[in-house]
Amino acid sequence: MTDSSLTPFFNPNGIVVVGASSHPQKLGYGVARNLTQSGYAGPIYFVSPKGGDLFSRQIFASIAEVPDPVDLAVVVVPAKYASESMRACGERGIKAVILVSGGFRETGEDGAVLETETLQVAKEYGIRMIGPNCIGLLDTHLPLDTTFLQPPFPLPGEIAFISHSGAICAALIDWSKEEGFSFSRLISLGNQADVTETDILPLVAEDEYTRVITLYLENISNGARFIEEARRVVKVKPVIALKVGRSASGQRAAASHTGALAGAESAFDAAFEKAGVFRADTTEEIFDWARALAWAPVLQGRRIAILTNAGGPGVIAADALEQNGLELAEFNKKTLAALGETLPSAASVHNPVDMLASASAEIYGECLRVILVDHNVDGALVILPPPPMYPAREAAEILIPIIQASEKPVLVVLMGSTQIEEASELFQNAKIPDYRFPERAASALARLAERAEFLREMDESVALLTDVDTPSARAVLADAEPGTWLEAEFADRLMNIYGIPTTPIKLAPDAESAARLGKELGFPVVMKIASPDIPHKSDVNGILLNLGSAAEIAEDFEMLMARVQAQRPDANLEGVLIQRMISGGQEVILGAVRDPQFGALMMFGSGGVEVEGLKDVAFALAPLSVREAEKMLGKTWAGRKLAGYRNLAPADRVGVVDALRRLGQLAHDLPEIAEIEINPLTVLEDGVVAVDVRVKMA
Amino acid sequence: MTDSSLTPFFNPNGIVVVGASSHPQKLGYGVARNLTQSGYAGPIYFVSPKGGDLFSRQIFASIAEVPDPVDLAVVVVPAKYASESMRACGERGIKAVILVSGGFRETGEDGAVLETETLQVAKEYGIRMIGPNCIGLLDTHLPLDTTFLQPPFPLPGEIAFISHSGAICAALIDWSKEEGFSFSRLISLGNQADVTETDILPLVAEDEYTRVITLYLENISNGARFIEEARRVVKVKPVIALKVGRSASGQRAAASHTGALAGAESAFDAAFEKAGVFRADTTEEIFDWARALAWAPVLQGRRIAILTNAGGPGVIAADALEQNGLELAEFNKKTLAALGETLPSAASVHNPVDMLASASAEIYGECLRVILVDHNVDGALVILPPPPMYPAREAAEILIPIIQASEKPVLVVLMGSTQIEEASELFQNAKIPDYRFPERAASALARLAERAEFLREMDESVALLTDVDTPSARAVLADAEPGTWLEAEFADRLMNIYGIPTTPIKLAPDAESAARLGKELGFPVVMKIASPDIPHKSDVNGILLNLGSAAEIAEDFEMLMARVQAQRPDANLEGVLIQRMISGGQEVILGAVRDPQFGALMMFGSGGVEVEGLKDVAFALAPLSVREAEKMLGKTWAGRKLAGYRNLAPADRVGVVDALRRLGQLAHDLPEIAEIEINPLTVLEDGVVAVDVRVKMA
Repeated sequence: MTDSSLTPFFNPNGIVVVGASSHPQKLGYGVARNLTQSGYAGPIYFVSPKGGDLFSRQIFASIAEVPDPVDLAVVVVPAKYASESMRACGERGIKAVILVSGGFRETGEDGAVLETETLQVAKEYGIRMIGPNCIGLLDTHLPLDTTFLQPPFPLPGEIAFISHSGAICAALIDWSKEEGFSFSRLISLGNQADVTETDILPLVAEDEYTRVITLYLENISNGARFIEEARRVVKVKPVIALKVGRSASGQRAAASHTGALAGAESAFDAAFEKAGVFRADTTEEIFDWARALAWAPVLQGRRIAILTNAGGPGVIAADALEQNGLELAEFNKKTLAALGETLPSAASVHNPVDMLASASAEIYGECLRVILVDHNVDGALVILPPPPMYPAREAAEILIPIIQASEKPVLVVLMGSTQIEEASELFQNAKIPDYRFPERAASALARLAERAEFLREMDESVALLTDVDTPSARAVLADAEPGTWLEAEFADRLMNIYGIPTTPIKLAPDAESAARLGKELGFPVVMKIASPDIPHKSDVNGILLNLGSAAEIAEDFEMLMARVQAQRPDANLEGVLIQRMISGGQEVILGAVRDPQFGALMMFGSGGVEVEGLKDVAFALAPLSVREAEKMLGKTWAGRKLAGYRNLAPADRVGVVDALRRLGQLAHDLPEIAEIEINPLTVLEDGVVAVDVRVKMA
Repeated sequence: MTDSSLTPFFNPNGIVVVGASSHPQKLGYGVARNLTQSGYAGPIYFVSPKGGDLFSRQIFASIAEVPDPVDLAVVVVPAKYASESMRACGERGIKAVILVSGGFRETGEDGAVLETETLQVAKEYGIRMIGPNCIGLLDTHLPLDTTFLQPPFPLPGEIAFISHSGAICAALIDWSKEEGFSFSRLISLGNQADVTETDILPLVAEDEYTRVITLYLENISNGARFIEEARRVVKVKPVIALKVGRSASGQRAAASHTGALAGAESAFDAAFEKAGVFRADTTEEIFDWARALAWAPVLQGRRIAILTNAGGPGVIAADALEQNGLELAEFNKKTLAALGETLPSAASVHNPVDMLASASAEIYGECLRVILVDHNVDGALVILPPPPMYPAREAAEILIPIIQASEKPVLVVLMGSTQIEEASELFQNAKIPDYRFPERAASALARLAERAEFLREMDESVALLTDVDTPSARAVLADAEPGTWLEAEFADRLMNIYGIPTTPIKLAPDAESAARLGKELGFPVVMKIASPDIPHKSDVNGILLNLGSAAEIAEDFEMLMARVQAQRPDANLEGVLIQRMISGGQEVILGAVRDPQFGALMMFGSGGVEVEGLKDVAFALAPLSVREAEKMLGKTWAGRKLAGYRNLAPADRVGVVDALRRLGQLAHDLPEIAEIEINPLTVLEDGVVAVDVRVKMA
């Protein structure tokens, strides 16, 4: 929720530019110019020790001299003077500062010291600070522009942009003109010494003109808070994020399969999914999606009609729909009849509707009208290559009122450049999203479908399990040393406390006790090497299956110990673990690893030793709702085949979902666990059994 | 190779427009106008029964009256008169016709009849025909324009475009103006009653101005010929194809796993790969790649330097390089030192080089010069968001001569629109590819690397195996009924003839003979149900493993027969197959399915019953070179793990490559086989064994 201390940033009551300059080459000139020209209605003041005049305003020699009202300062002074200016702002009672200047943490250690100093002063005076090393912010509706970017001031729009990079802001403002969309609020956060993307998100969301919020992120400052705030915002307005720095984020150092597979980017993917934030892969994708989400109604289903005057683009569009998980609508008889009456016999009345090159602007309109009333159609894609016989503008004029009157989304594909320029302008002015190629329009349509699905599902909250006893679980961990693997029996106890079925596992230090345990547990049994130094037992052939008698156990004990010791002379072997063997069923892996940013990151997938090679796994953040757990199953072959496949009997899918939720809550409740993995969880026709559980302490 | 009968299309010696019209609404007017205005230097004639004048030229009443020289006719008459016009052309001695008119096969059965008639007349006179239902062709260098598209005539360029869709041509010509590239030759093939994409490809390739050939394909007329021609062309000029109609091509009806997995699009993928043709996913991608391939040198390695004046775009670029399989170059000490001298201390001299927003145009130039001489750098990406202090044009002016002098490719990312417009024009005029976003530039760079790799490898030809006896193999198939499954013993014999090791498999009609065979072959054995009606034995639990004695066989025989008969009462059970059991090793699947277009399509991957779920498979067209077979292994986890993985011992990778090539040649040599599948091929440490082989007759 919006912190009221941030209000002055977008609703200032008087602004002072500290470091205003009359030299056009200086940033302090650009800020003064933009603020003055933006049309900001409140008082604007300039401060510079040199004094003088600028844009018909007096330049005050010090901040102290600036009269009331003033509650926002834009500071553009050399880094070494920043803390001094901050103090002057504090003394003057200003509680909001945009520190534009660079020369701080981004330049090295000396700069980092200056940044810390400046932040300390800000804290001392209760000042909220955006920056340093940023280009500030703008609001096209208020209006307000605290940046130093080249004019002209952007037109008012509906898309907000929050960015960790200033250069991207500059480029996008310019690029948006060509693409025909505009920004509502735009903010560059720079080094985020104080105010972060999570702080600013609700502030931008509450703007009445903003319909979609877009984010350019290089990191996230506080994962849990980001998810919480974003979830709240997303219920009201769609959020799209481009998270960059994939290549730099690299792999985790981790001991479990889960840890090895769960790269930092898996955590970001899971976080965005949990928050309901769309994650874009490219900059263009952000705004392809944003325009549709800002301007078009959502898609109540996935059945799309394609209307074209040429076959080729229709085929491209049909491919693109399928690629994006959408379907070609099948028209009802009435629609087919109506199209048949309207169109020449050589035309195709089936979807994609090919009206032929001779289709007039009126025909375009008539066919679209017919298609949109069909109950089997959820939305439409109208394709307009340059019509051979009339300007595309004419079609636009006829189509616009039909599209505006429709409750179903219609996106337009205008293929070409000069020949469709006028039409494109008309569509853009009417707030109808247009695209140059079907592929990009189809990708935007898919987001309209996902948005509707999200709105239908959003009220689901994670019901935490109540039949678990966290204090008891914590007690099990009490004596475990940090950074070590928990003993198998303790891991088994943890599972029992959290309600995940296991088959009892017992430690036997010698052959005799192993044989005895076998009798106790019931044959056949599995015998596994027990060593804190060997997390992956199968890597050293440390598992013997299907031992049918005490004699077999006794015979194989020494052999197993000797074999493993030969391979790993350094390992401390404690003996063997004896466990009753479970036959049949399907095997899956369940795991969790602690992400420093987002907490317990869960993994589900095809288990066994080959999990890292097959990579048939899915991720999500704990705690998991039933739906979230089911989605993980649906994303993997391991999960899909639980329903049965060929001679593979159906297995207890519900049991897996439950185990996944229980493991998730365990990982969530006990941050002292760094990694936890069940590999395999054997899924029987009725019931599941955690056969091998490994727990690594943080 | 170019068929000389096609020469008049791009090198006509006199052109007649049949159906020229003085009505500006008619296509016959547009064709006459474009041809006249295009600047075509040879004689131009018009024919229309109405006579008169057009564009200061006499309109002849009939084709017969047209004087010499004339060897190309552009025919724009109603479909019902087309065959008549064709005959008149033939009588007049014209051997090349572009039939622009629509109203043929694309409109239904009546149209198809007209098309066949017209084609017959063409054949009778030895006329080569492009179309019908096309927009003709243009050559911007000759120049020549037989289309009816709206003026202006496109500028001369280096990219050729061959299209199955006319509307796409119209849209792309218009769009190319905005994107800053131009076409050399462009041709719309329409219904391809006679001339196809494969015919025209070499004709376009031999054009001296064409540097890259791009294709928009809805199908391929003759798969084998296309691959052959494309392979020849690609050695000289890069070819990029967009194959549409993925959604329509659907799934094969097939009985084997290979058949079920090998969708029609897998065959197209494999065909393009075999031919060395780049397959684009979107229209924009075609031209992102084509501009780079036309204008920039190829990449001799994958190490790229990024030069930027802002961090954000640099991070996006680094992500995009990784995404496209490229690497960030690591600079040598000399480069780091030189950059350190040139740049302020707060800048980053490591790759990506962030020169900071203050970087002047001169600094851009100096840094690029330094980077390009580093031996660790194969190419560069220069990123230019709108510079805050000077027009982007200034940087362009300094960068262009440096880029033009470099033997390493440099692509430019110009972020924005109005603020980088002038710079963009300068780069485009200098034939330096520029992109709006790093993601698209990185994708183009990757193609420059692949092109170089292709040129290094292209001389490899498939050495066919000489130790196979095709007539003997054919003899094995002689008595097999079409459409049926070959008996296991015959399949085994085929393997032996083609040198793929098997373990003998024998049919036993009753328990007694099954037990006897077990003794003969040696225990343990596998017993499988034998039925021509049950291709997937494990689906009916029709396989018993590890039978250790004659008694066990005898005991299990009836149980197996009864169990399968209960499940499949309709199936004709012939008895069981007995085979010695192979233990250990890794299991893979090898298969081939006959593609109607491209012949034997091979599959390799993770075998077992779950192959269709895991989809860890790769495809290629037979016959396979060693390199092609190895690539299939590299694309799958099943192939990669043959090198060994954790406790999985390394297996006979070379044996798998050999078996794959042998199976490929078998499928290639014997078109009477529809599907063939080895599942599993057991891969031992030394040697491979085809354990289960199924062959379906065509």
